[in-house]
Amino acid sequence: MTHTSRTVRAALDALFDPRSVAVVGASGNPEKWGYWLAAGALEGRDRRTVHLVNRRGGELHGVRFVPGLDGLPDPPDHVVIVVPPQQVRPLVVQGLAAGARCFTVITSGGTSAAEERELAALITGGGARLLGPNCMGVVDTTSGLRLSWGDFPAGSVGLVSQSGNLALEIGRLLARAGQGFSRFVSLGNQRDIDAADALDALIAHAPTRVVAAYIEDFRDGRRLARTLTAAHTAGKPVLLLTVGASEASDRAAASHTGALVSARATVEAVCREAGALLLDTAGELVDTAICLLAAPVGALGLWTGGHVEASGGATGGHTSDGPSRPWALRVAVVGDSGGQGALAADALVARGFDVPGLSAGTAGAVAAFLPSGAACGNPVDLAGAGEADLHNYSRIARALLFGGGTDAVVLTGYFGDYATANPAQADRECEVANELACAARESGRLLVVHTMARDTPALAVLRAHSVPVYERIEQAATALAGAARLHATVAAAPDASPRRASYGVPDGGYETVRELLASYGLTFPAAEFVTTADEAVEAAYRTGYPLALKAMGLAHKTEAGGVALGIADEGGLRTAFARMRSTTGAARYAVEAMASPPYAVELIAGVRRDPAFGPVAMVGIGGVNAELLADTAVALAPLTPERARDLLLSLRHSALLTGWRGAPPVHLDAAAAALCTVARAGAEHTELSELEVNPLLVHPGGAIALDAHGVLR
Amino acid sequence: MTHTSRTVRAALDALFDPRSVAVVGASGNPEKWGYWLAAGALEGRDRRTVHLVNRRGGELHGVRFVPGLDGLPDPPDHVVIVVPPQQVRPLVVQGLAAGARCFTVITSGGTSAAEERELAALITGGGARLLGPNCMGVVDTTSGLRLSWGDFPAGSVGLVSQSGNLALEIGRLLARAGQGFSRFVSLGNQRDIDAADALDALIAHAPTRVVAAYIEDFRDGRRLARTLTAAHTAGKPVLLLTVGASEASDRAAASHTGALVSARATVEAVCREAGALLLDTAGELVDTAICLLAAPVGALGLWTGGHVEASGGATGGHTSDGPSRPWALRVAVVGDSGGQGALAADALVARGFDVPGLSAGTAGAVAAFLPSGAACGNPVDLAGAGEADLHNYSRIARALLFGGGTDAVVLTGYFGDYATANPAQADRECEVANELACAARESGRLLVVHTMARDTPALAVLRAHSVPVYERIEQAATALAGAARLHATVAAAPDASPRRASYGVPDGGYETVRELLASYGLTFPAAEFVTTADEAVEAAYRTGYPLALKAMGLAHKTEAGGVALGIADEGGLRTAFARMRSTTGAARYAVEAMASPPYAVELIAGVRRDPAFGPVAMVGIGGVNAELLADTAVALAPLTPERARDLLLSLRHSALLTGWRGAPPVHLDAAAAALCTVARAGAEHTELSELEVNPLLVHPGGAIALDAHGVLR
Repeated sequence: MTHTSRTVRAALDALFDPRSVAVVGASGNPEKWGYWLAAGALEGRDRRTVHLVNRRGGELHGVRFVPGLDGLPDPPDHVVIVVPPQQVRPLVVQGLAAGARCFTVITSGGTSAAEERELAALITGGGARLLGPNCMGVVDTTSGLRLSWGDFPAGSVGLVSQSGNLALEIGRLLARAGQGFSRFVSLGNQRDIDAADALDALIAHAPTRVVAAYIEDFRDGRRLARTLTAAHTAGKPVLLLTVGASEASDRAAASHTGALVSARATVEAVCREAGALLLDTAGELVDTAICLLAAPVGALGLWTGGHVEASGGATGGHTSDGPSRPWALRVAVVGDSGGQGALAADALVARGFDVPGLSAGTAGAVAAFLPSGAACGNPVDLAGAGEADLHNYSRIARALLFGGGTDAVVLTGYFGDYATANPAQADRECEVANELACAARESGRLLVVHTMARDTPALAVLRAHSVPVYERIEQAATALAGAARLHATVAAAPDASPRRASYGVPDGGYETVRELLASYGLTFPAAEFVTTADEAVEAAYRTGYPLALKAMGLAHKTEAGGVALGIADEGGLRTAFARMRSTTGAARYAVEAMASPPYAVELIAGVRRDPAFGPVAMVGIGGVNAELLADTAVALAPLTPERARDLLLSLRHSALLTGWRGAPPVHLDAAAAALCTVARAGAEHTELSELEVNPLLVHPGGAIALDAHGVLR
Repeated sequence: MTHTSRTVRAALDALFDPRSVAVVGASGNPEKWGYWLAAGALEGRDRRTVHLVNRRGGELHGVRFVPGLDGLPDPPDHVVIVVPPQQVRPLVVQGLAAGARCFTVITSGGTSAAEERELAALITGGGARLLGPNCMGVVDTTSGLRLSWGDFPAGSVGLVSQSGNLALEIGRLLARAGQGFSRFVSLGNQRDIDAADALDALIAHAPTRVVAAYIEDFRDGRRLARTLTAAHTAGKPVLLLTVGASEASDRAAASHTGALVSARATVEAVCREAGALLLDTAGELVDTAICLLAAPVGALGLWTGGHVEASGGATGGHTSDGPSRPWALRVAVVGDSGGQGALAADALVARGFDVPGLSAGTAGAVAAFLPSGAACGNPVDLAGAGEADLHNYSRIARALLFGGGTDAVVLTGYFGDYATANPAQADRECEVANELACAARESGRLLVVHTMARDTPALAVLRAHSVPVYERIEQAATALAGAARLHATVAAAPDASPRRASYGVPDGGYETVRELLASYGLTFPAAEFVTTADEAVEAAYRTGYPLALKAMGLAHKTEAGGVALGIADEGGLRTAFARMRSTTGAARYAVEAMASPPYAVELIAGVRRDPAFGPVAMVGIGGVNAELLADTAVALAPLTPERARDLLLSLRHSALLTGWRGAPPVHLDAAAAALCTVARAGAEHTELSELEVNPLLVHPGGAIALDAHGVLR
């Protein structure tokens, strides 16, 4: 980036809300892109000048095409180009000369990456910005700018996408939910404006309330991570889709650490720390966006905090005792059917929510509207009360929203469909929909509706009030879970890109890496490196027995017979040395004191260098259980002690660390410090693509590394 | 059941396709159930006589209400009753006298369970059948019978439900997918016709091609399991929804086994063995039904078998190396967008599918229709080929369907929507839809479509040809996974209800339960039971040292200091005895030989008696890893050796049994035999609600039980 932030902002103004637009390659033929760009640009004619450029002339909607950019009466602020590849460059030169501040290049193919970079340099060198090439354009429904193909419904979701069709799909799904886009940026080949730039622009855009992104190529991952953190801090949730694009690099991993730190795991870790959500499909993204529009992250304290009443026992309610629940959002479920209510509760519990029994006060308030004798648990079964009087829906929802025992209310099943069977009920149903929305807003809590109805007037009322409405209970539960996860996140910016060490290690062997890590402060057992049996015996005087003998320079030394443990005396050492030398032929050996602290847990700790995100730290359960448990956690390196501790405690089997089956807990601070040390060394030593300590013994008294190696880039 | 199967069938004919129907409680007021039942019944007037009964007179659609059932010109074959509770019984008496063979009682409340049972006895004693009471009625769209409220679209799915609203929701979702119901049976209180009866009737019904069921109360679970197995064998997939209704019983569990065999786990095990699918929501059920209608289980050999070409390396393809993939269905993905294709592949891989590289032959066939230079991997990215010529969709799909390297093709993204932007393409798009459907049919493989379009003519063509069409890729992937799982199942009927042992055990203590299990053939270490130190020393001459001393009659003997292991000699035994007696105060002790076979794996094995399904066997990883791994599997008891073996190998960590980290494998046949023994003993001893062997040591040489206890009912 060679721009000051003021210049960047000005150029981005030209991107999203230019004073004038020129469409180069305009066409009157609806089968051409040039037609849609021109027609879209003309929709903003009341706000800005629109020039349609085609050197062969023509016209659209009464606007005559001009032959070039050089004879325009005023500078074309934003030039969108859809002409054959070889014509792009001369037109850019023309545009720059005419004072253009922003170019969107739709044109794809016909040029090399080097030519594209040269084009970008030409544009940025001229003080302008480039979107694309090979992109689908840009839309800002709040400024009436439509420079793309397809239908982009207006709404509050900003989208940055590397796939055009996926943007169209998201738009369709948003429209069906009564929502749409504030802005849409198609990234294309990102030769200048990249994902982080576009996200910045969406985060700064007040009408954009939720940011969505589909990114295949993360470029400067650290910058992206900082952008995501800034978004979370600004109360703008970011919902991210990506694909398993780095599989080939995953397969190329040369150590356990490399194999355990997949590209997906890295992105997941970045999102978790930054307070963004990594989702799997367009549908999940839209469902979650709809939920977040109703429950802005800024309103967190409002709807997850306070007003907690003691729960009056589970009267038909569900409780979850799953092992890892990063949030404990309590949900009340109301349905006009016991079956739908129970399935809704199961779907919520399966996603980590509590569906607790109602407090006596709330149960009493609800029961007042139920048929006499009806059970009043959670889920609440209306048992015909809704049919008898539609207003009972809003009365009961209000009682639950204000009851204090729950943070969100899920209304499931039939509401929204009464008017379908009986049109005479339409007005009343809309009235109740309005009451429901008001109750939610006034309570500061979240109301989510699942209904078998589709596109009825009552649903339109709910949606107009930002009440999330879903066709399937699994959509409601998944969206609520995503929103809750985001609400529970305290976003942390990644550490600034680590400084680079002033020296590099010559190889990744134990001797070298041990020395490196020891210089960072990691504890190892006393050891000496020797070449002969006599030297080994000599060294053993200083390390003491029992000791371990290890052959150096082997890829898999345990499998190759290059490790002997628990050697008790000189005789044993000489025997082991002779055998190891003949088996492995190694030239160099470590004589190392045995470390077997009681109640130790074996961990594996390492760092892998990701092409986009840089050094990524990994910790996992090691030793004999490592493969069995396959339990690892990753985060961007370096780590703070707090984050290292969180990472350790985020392991699924972290109970092993905190006093498992009567054992004393391990020294968590020491374990975290050791992990920090490994992370920092790996981060600073950019000559290493992978660094691994395995095992790292953590125990009640501290942490000690028993083996380590690295992989040079 | 007091009926012969012929009588049952005749009465069920009267339920679904009666010669005449009488609606008792008919009404002309659309706000009353009696109106909808009467109007629904009248829709079948061209096929059967319809009598509308209301003692206060009235009429509907020109049919005058008669005052009762006694003056009808012909017998009312099927009588549906919706009158106040106290009027039901006299009307049933009238109906029986008039020759009714079937009663559907909508009326709810106002009677006790005993009165309902008495009503059922009255009806079945009169040679008729009862559906309900408290049900929503019955619909058979193939015989024009509509005796319910609400809209039941016609189609090929038969539904049995204990929830009316859920049935309406399923109907809505089916209708949106272009499908509907063949039959719908609302079970109500199941006082005569129960879930298994209704399922039997749906399985035997030729136009019903997929059976769906929502069941809260399983009644005779073994009979239901046999019904599910029969359905699978008959090629009628059963898709089941249920709810966590037995939570209270789960909480009441008195042993590890009890806690580990949840009601849900039991139903899941029953479904897995019987070849039914337990699903979570109405949406999942409908999606899976749509997929199964296109891929009937009878066509299994056709689309998962044969024609396997060697995969030509993963050219951009995905492979899954997840630990448990019960099927290995290979899927090819085609999209008009790289992003959507990649997300689709990720969604499929996440559900256990392979998205393998294309064989050279298939890749060549596909590439012929792609723009020159376009990469041809899996997912296939059309890269504009579809836009250029819609027929390329069907050409490429055909190449993939016939290519031999994949079992199913998922078309993702845009197809179905071309005519929306350009209506001139409508005919061609429908033509291509037809070609796609033909290609799938001719290939005998499955084509699944995910599209951002909704309700377009091309989608109607696809649906008319039973090509599954989904709005979201996760729906497509989940449905395909369910269908694949069902296809891969070899259904096994549960063993006949176990015989009951001719004697009962007096308590659940180790001494008793050990004797019981030993009598069934389970191996234990040599042991004697003693009351004094001298007796213990005497016993030790026979068991030999080292030995274990255990105090009897304690609930948690290890925690209570009631277990001493590895006692080496008489002195040690006397010391341990004295200490244990003073700590526990126990009156009786076991002196037991130590068993520590090398390479042993500790299992836990047990049986729990489920209120609906009877004895359920459980096996899990035991010992120190038990809680850590939480890895258990359940199945109805007793077990065959084959099923016991499958159960062991279905454990997530079964690698521990088959030679983990260089250890020799355990004796799987001996482990399976031990599990069978525990299962049989638990099944036959109905006086035990729970039976548990923990640990069960399995090792390369056999299996030996080290402790056991039971819980009396």
